Amino acid sequence: MQKTNYVISNKMASMKPSMVREILKASSEPGTIAFSAGNPAPEAFPVSDIKRIANDIFDKDPVLALQYGVTEGYDPLRNELLSYLKERHNLGTENDTLIITSGAQQVMDLVTKVLCNEGDVVACESPSFIGSLNCFRAYGTSLKGVPVEADGISIEGLEKLLKEESKVKFLYTIPNFQNPAGVTMSLEKRKALYDLACKYDIIVLEDNPYGDLRVSGENLPSIKSMDTEGRVIYAGTFSKLIAPGIRVGYVLGPQPIVAKMTVGKQTSDVHTPMFSQLLVYNWLKTCDIDEHIERMQSIYRKRLNLMCDLIDSELSDYVTYVKPEGGMFVWCELIPEIDMMEFCAEAAKKKVAVVPGIAFLTNEDEKTQCFRLNFSTPTEEDIVKGMKILGELAKNWKK
Amino acid sequence: MQKTNYVISNKMASMKPSMVREILKASSEPGTIAFSAGNPAPEAFPVSDIKRIANDIFDKDPVLALQYGVTEGYDPLRNELLSYLKERHNLGTENDTLIITSGAQQVMDLVTKVLCNEGDVVACESPSFIGSLNCFRAYGTSLKGVPVEADGISIEGLEKLLKEESKVKFLYTIPNFQNPAGVTMSLEKRKALYDLACKYDIIVLEDNPYGDLRVSGENLPSIKSMDTEGRVIYAGTFSKLIAPGIRVGYVLGPQPIVAKMTVGKQTSDVHTPMFSQLLVYNWLKTCDIDEHIERMQSIYRKRLNLMCDLIDSELSDYVTYVKPEGGMFVWCELIPEIDMMEFCAEAAKKKVAVVPGIAFLTNEDEKTQCFRLNFSTPTEEDIVKGMKILGELAKNWKK
Repeated sequence: MQKTNYVISNKMASMKPSMVREILKASSEPGTIAFSAGNPAPEAFPVSDIKRIANDIFDKDPVLALQYGVTEGYDPLRNELLSYLKERHNLGTENDTLIITSGAQQVMDLVTKVLCNEGDVVACESPSFIGSLNCFRAYGTSLKGVPVEADGISIEGLEKLLKEESKVKFLYTIPNFQNPAGVTMSLEKRKALYDLACKYDIIVLEDNPYGDLRVSGENLPSIKSMDTEGRVIYAGTFSKLIAPGIRVGYVLGPQPIVAKMTVGKQTSDVHTPMFSQLLVYNWLKTCDIDEHIERMQSIYRKRLNLMCDLIDSELSDYVTYVKPEGGMFVWCELIPEIDMMEFCAEAAKKKVAVVPGIAFLTNEDEKTQCFRLNFSTPTEEDIVKGMKILGELAKNWKK
Repeated sequence: MQKTNYVISNKMASMKPSMVREILKASSEPGTIAFSAGNPAPEAFPVSDIKRIANDIFDKDPVLALQYGVTEGYDPLRNELLSYLKERHNLGTENDTLIITSGAQQVMDLVTKVLCNEGDVVACESPSFIGSLNCFRAYGTSLKGVPVEADGISIEGLEKLLKEESKVKFLYTIPNFQNPAGVTMSLEKRKALYDLACKYDIIVLEDNPYGDLRVSGENLPSIKSMDTEGRVIYAGTFSKLIAPGIRVGYVLGPQPIVAKMTVGKQTSDVHTPMFSQLLVYNWLKTCDIDEHIERMQSIYRKRLNLMCDLIDSELSDYVTYVKPEGGMFVWCELIPEIDMMEFCAEAAKKKVAVVPGIAFLTNEDEKTQCFRLNFSTPTEEDIVKGMKILGELAKNWKK
C-alpha cells in the first residue's frame, strides 16, 4: 500500500549509519568481549555524588530542573565553566563566548552548520573520530585527510593540503590521545599547526574529549590557549569526566561564531536538558575534582598498561603500535601478511570485537592495516581473555 | 588583536535569534507580567512522581542512566510509546518506525536535514510556530505560507500553493490548538489536507505538542491516523505532558525517512540523555496518565477561561479572537485604529509582555494586526492584572 516515493536530500542521501555504532550493536551480544566500544569505564562514574546531587536538585528547586531553559545554557554553569577553563587550562579571552551543548557531538554539528556550505572542504586528521567525520559529511562537505604520526598530525601534510586547497573552511583536530590513533600532538606541532592556521587563514576546531584521561607524561597546552587571533573553537565534554549518558558538552570560541551556533542550537534542540546541566553545575561546585580525576586516571592507567602489556606478550610479532599516554584507545597496525578486514571478521567469530581501521579514514577507499582496540569498557579479566584470543588468532593465521 | 574574518555559511548568514526568545529574555525582568512566554504551567508538572522515579533510577541501575545509549532511544521506552500511541490515538502501522528525539524541535531539525536541499520549499501555516519556521530557514529552505482560518489551514490556499509550486518538499502543520493562532483543524479539513498531500505527492509533518491540553470539545483524529500511503511524519513531545526541561520528544513516521533521521541524529547529539528517557519510561509505566491529564487540563481550562473572559470584559471593543479549545495561546487581532507594533511596545513599557504577531509569519515583510497571548505561564492573579493593563492601554489609545 505504500505509494510514497521518498526523496532524500543530497547531503544525506549517501549517509549510512556509523560502521562503529553498527559493530557496537553487534558486539552487545552476550558473551562477546567488546574492544570495539567507545564507552568510558563505568567504574569511574561518580555515582554516589550524582545520587546526592539528583536528590538535592529535585528537593530544592524541581521547577528549575523541569521548565524550559535558555539556549545558551544555565548561566551559573556557564560562568563556573569559564572560571574552570581559565584557572585550569588558561583558556578563554574577552573575545570568546561559551555555551552549553548536548554533548561535544553537537559542537561538531553546529560548527559545520554555521561555517560550511555544501562542497566546502574540512581538513581532518586521517584516521579520525568517525562521529565527527560523519557529522561533517552530513552537511555535504568534502573531507581531506592529513596523516597522523607518532607525535600527532603531519605538519608537512597539513601545509601541502592548505597550499593546494583554497576551500578549507576549518581543520578538525584531537590533539590529546587521538581517537583512534591514540597519539598526542607535541607542543612544537601544536604551535606549528596554529601558525599554519594563521598563515592560511583557516579556523581550527580543537576537540578535547579525553584531556583528563592522561595516565602518563605531562599535560600540554591546548591550541586554543595559543589563540591570539580568535580562530580556534574549543570543544569540551563531561562525557568522560562525569558520564556520557547525561550529554553535556560545551564550546568555547570566538563570539561571532558561537553567537551563530546559539541560533543554530535554538532550532536544533532549544536547549540541553536542565537536569543534566544542574547535575554538572552542582558536581563542579561540591565535589573534589582533582581527587576524582586521580581516581579515574588510576582506573584507566591500569587497563591501558594491561592491554599494552598483552599486545607486547601476545601480538608483538604481528602488530606495531604507539603506546598512548591516555585516552581510551590503542591503534594497532598488522603485518602485511595478515589481511586486516579478515582478521577483524575472524576475531568477531571468536567473540572478540575490534573496529577495522577503515571506519576512521576520511577516504574510505584507502587501504589500512590498522584496527582499533578500546581498553576503557572491558573488565581486566576480559582484556586478558580477549587479547589472548587475538594473539592465538595471529599466531595461527592461515596455518 | 582579533584578525580573523568569520565567513558564515549561506544558510545561516541571515539567521537571527528568534524574536520570541529575545522578548522572552527581556520579559524575565522582575515585575514583568509575561504573556509572551511559551512555558507550560509548572503547577502541572508531576513533581512528586518525578522525585520518586529519579530516586529509583539512580538506586536501581545508575550505570544505565549514565552510560552511552543507542541513537534510536531506549528500547523499552520506544516499545512503550508505540503501544501508547496505538492504543490511545490509533497511530502507527507496520511501515512506521519510532525514535526518541531531544524534544520535538529535533524532529523538525532532522526532517529538514533529511528531506531538504537549499532552495527547496516548505509549506507552512502562516502564522506558525517560530521555532519550526526558523529551523526550516536554517537549512536554506524557502517558506511559503498558507492562511489559517478559524477551523484550521485554508484548504483552498493550500491547493493553490501546491498547484503553483512544484518544489514543495513537505507541509508543516499543527492541527491542535495551533501556535500561535490557537485554532483547531476540523475533521473535514484534516481529510482534505491528507487528500491534497496524496494528490500532489508531498510529505506532511504533523506537529502535535499540545494535543493533551484540550480543555473543551472533542478529540479529533490526527492526520497521521489517516495515513495509508506512508506520507505523514508525526512529531510528539513530553514537554507538556511531563515537563519541557527534560527535552524528550519522538517521531513516528515512514521507516525509510526515520532511518535517515537516525543517521542524522547520530551526528547531531548521539542520543537523548538516558536519565530523561528513563524518567519518561518509568512515568508511563507507573503513573496514572489519565488522572494526570485531567488535573493538567483543569489547570489550563481555568487559565484559558479566565484570560478569555478578561479579553471579553476589557478588550472586546479593540480585539477579535477565536476562543481556543486548548493549548497555551490566544491570538488577538487589534482594530485598525491601533498600531499593533506600537501597542506591544507600549504594553512592554507598562510591564506586560506580549508577542507581536509579525514574529510568526512565514514572510516577515507582511503586515498583521495580531499579537499572541500565553495563558499557561502567568498566575491567575497576573492574568487579571495584566489583562486590565492591556484593556486600559487600548481604551486610552492616543487620547
